Amino acid sequence: MYKMNSYLKKMYCLRCGSQYEIKDYHTGCPSCLKDGYPVNLSFKYEGKQKIRKDKSRMFRYQDFLPYESFPTLGEGNTPVIEVKRLADNLNLNKVYIKNEFQNPTGSHKDRMSPFAVARAVSLGKKCVVAASSGNAGASLAAYAAAAGIKCKIITTRKMNPIWKKAIELPGAELVLMNTPQERWPYMQKMVEQEDWYPVTNFVTPPVGSNPFGIQGYKTISYEIYEELSNEMPHFILIPSCRADLLWGVYEGFKDLFDFGLIQDIPRLIAVEPFPRISKILDGEDYRNTFLGDSSSTVSIGGDTVTYQAIAAIKLSKGTASNIVQNKVAEYRLELAKLGFYLESSAATIIGSLAELVADQTVPQGASVLMIATSNGYKDVP
Amino acid sequence: MYKMNSYLKKMYCLRCGSQYEIKDYHTGCPSCLKDGYPVNLSFKYEGKQKIRKDKSRMFRYQDFLPYESFPTLGEGNTPVIEVKRLADNLNLNKVYIKNEFQNPTGSHKDRMSPFAVARAVSLGKKCVVAASSGNAGASLAAYAAAAGIKCKIITTRKMNPIWKKAIELPGAELVLMNTPQERWPYMQKMVEQEDWYPVTNFVTPPVGSNPFGIQGYKTISYEIYEELSNEMPHFILIPSCRADLLWGVYEGFKDLFDFGLIQDIPRLIAVEPFPRISKILDGEDYRNTFLGDSSSTVSIGGDTVTYQAIAAIKLSKGTASNIVQNKVAEYRLELAKLGFYLESSAATIIGSLAELVADQTVPQGASVLMIATSNGYKDVP
Ligand SMILES: Cc1ncc(COP(=O)(O)O)c(C=O)c1O
Ligand SMILES: Cc1ncc(COP(=O)(O)O)c(C=O)c1O
Ligand SMILES: [Zn+2]
Ligand SMILES: [Zn+2]
Repeated sequence: MYKMNSYLKKMYCLRCGSQYEIKDYHTGCPSCLKDGYPVNLSFKYEGKQKIRKDKSRMFRYQDFLPYESFPTLGEGNTPVIEVKRLADNLNLNKVYIKNEFQNPTGSHKDRMSPFAVARAVSLGKKCVVAASSGNAGASLAAYAAAAGIKCKIITTRKMNPIWKKAIELPGAELVLMNTPQERWPYMQKMVEQEDWYPVTNFVTPPVGSNPFGIQGYKTISYEIYEELSNEMPHFILIPSCRADLLWGVYEGFKDLFDFGLIQDIPRLIAVEPFPRISKILDGEDYRNTFLGDSSSTVSIGGDTVTYQAIAAIKLSKGTASNIVQNKVAEYRLELAKLGFYLESSAATIIGSLAELVADQTVPQGASVLMIATSNGYKDVP
Repeated sequence: MYKMNSYLKKMYCLRCGSQYEIKDYHTGCPSCLKDGYPVNLSFKYEGKQKIRKDKSRMFRYQDFLPYESFPTLGEGNTPVIEVKRLADNLNLNKVYIKNEFQNPTGSHKDRMSPFAVARAVSLGKKCVVAASSGNAGASLAAYAAAAGIKCKIITTRKMNPIWKKAIELPGAELVLMNTPQERWPYMQKMVEQEDWYPVTNFVTPPVGSNPFGIQGYKTISYEIYEELSNEMPHFILIPSCRADLLWGVYEGFKDLFDFGLIQDIPRLIAVEPFPRISKILDGEDYRNTFLGDSSSTVSIGGDTVTYQAIAAIKLSKGTASNIVQNKVAEYRLELAKLGFYLESSAATIIGSLAELVADQTVPQGASVLMIATSNGYKDVP
């Protein structure tokens, strides 16, 4: 039903580079895992891929995506808005916001779900499953409904009623656990016994989400390139948790670079709720557990880091940036007063930007683009 | 600061056709009002207007809009999605949904606010005001913030906390009244004494919202035309209250027709919560008051009708269609199961479609487009 892209040739490991045939590796690279390193896989394409100028939204980039057809609800093609007032205040050349919250279910996750669902349907699966604190669940529920398959979302009892409704109304079933940790063995069991197709994974530390899904995030980079070609931003700020988004955006720019369309890959900055990635960049092992307060930013919480986060940052010469948890309400307010009504976890971008300018990671006169991942209606008012 | 379109020549009355110079007529056509008929005004343009193919979003249609520059947050250019499962179930040729809920503040109102705010700023006004049950308020608050002017939203104590937050966070002030009726004299007083610029009006029965703002809705029709040109829908279903949207969409199609770009104007169907417009089509005076239950669809409630509603329906050979109040939850569910997560008032489109097919207003084999005006996160879960 959904057609695979014929340019798609191989999968490869982000860490050891081993190549694999195109299949589902729910625990990431088998070889790295055996050595004790959970690592996600990605894809290699070969052939005369090009942007399909006659098509719209993600279909425009189908040559670069695992499936050339997929369930669609109107995702992608989000606007890039220049925010002059911010650039002036911070002495920057340009500040842009890319409104990923304008996707159909109100977050960037709508670029991932279509490919995860297309993959599941292609394999004849009848049910997809994801562990989610909210946005991934609301998105997957909608796309599973659109494709006519079942959906299970594993979460904890703390999920707010706004997300619960958005997940349950399209027909997905919520599985409520007492702790985040209980989710993994349960998911693994259901994948093995019930043939549910996993869109997020169940190893600890996680490898990141389903690689077919992550490919969808590359389209964010292609769109930025098509919109800003001769004024590409130097830095891109991305609220990060499992860093599926961060890695996908990196790969998108890498494609553009490999095709000679851009001269530099923008530096990717992972915006995180407390030091996790930062600690790894300072020398800690990425497989450690990291404790910190994320109570005001549940969508990007969690005590683990993925290998793909570190890879995207190192390869793009980026870094990680922390925000101040008890300033999250101020961040939301500051963005709202510019007209952008964002979820708390998404509003962290502006706190991060101020910090990065203050410590001169982002120098005066630079151009910055911030990805606004989710709308303000997701937070309990 | 915001530049007026030089093709803009005159204003005219929807009912008597009188022409007026371009100014602000907050109580509609002076001549009709004197005769006891509150009626909105619209605009006449002259010159070589064309679609600016090199521009995006509403800027693409700036030749047809009152201001060629205006505050922007990424509004417009919403996707049109074909819903095959619905067409098959109902024996229709095509069923499309246009996702207006993907606008920046989650509703179609984001096409109106930029022009109302551009007008206010051009006149040197420091504050805009609107009476709103939620969506218009959330939208105007964001665009006023983006443009750096003040905003007041007059509503009743019943407004849910989700909208309150979306209106107050950008800095707008909520003025809470005990009844909807109290809003009009208060607004009039503040417009006259405090120089607030009115984006909705304060006559009873209402004439509809600010005509500069309403022009923004024409872009919906232009986008439908650009997307579906050779497969234009026969019917367009539009949830309606003051019918700003209905009239704007009509005028957009009228422009396309006058320029020879389309052969027929689609029939516009006003979807209403209980018989109001229907009664007028059956012979009642449009200036009457109409009682009915709208408790499940607050965004399209109210006991009055506007002249512009009737004009849009008659000129497009359309009609009005009622939904069943106590089926609204089912409508929401039905759309969610297709992947569309809508506010209750917006989900009425699917109830209306079923009724219209059942009574053969929409014949077998017809093509229908439904405007999905607002997202599901606006309803209290
Ligand atoms: C609002 C928001 N921003 C950012 C992210 C981070 O995405 P990722 O897990 O790909 O790093 C999430 C993920 O859940 C999110 O919900
Ligand atoms: C969700 C929704 N749909 C439709 C409408 C109708 O718009 P109009 O007042 O232009 O008829 C409104 C207006 O408030 C609305 O909020
Ligand atoms: Zn490996
Ligand atoms: Zn008149």
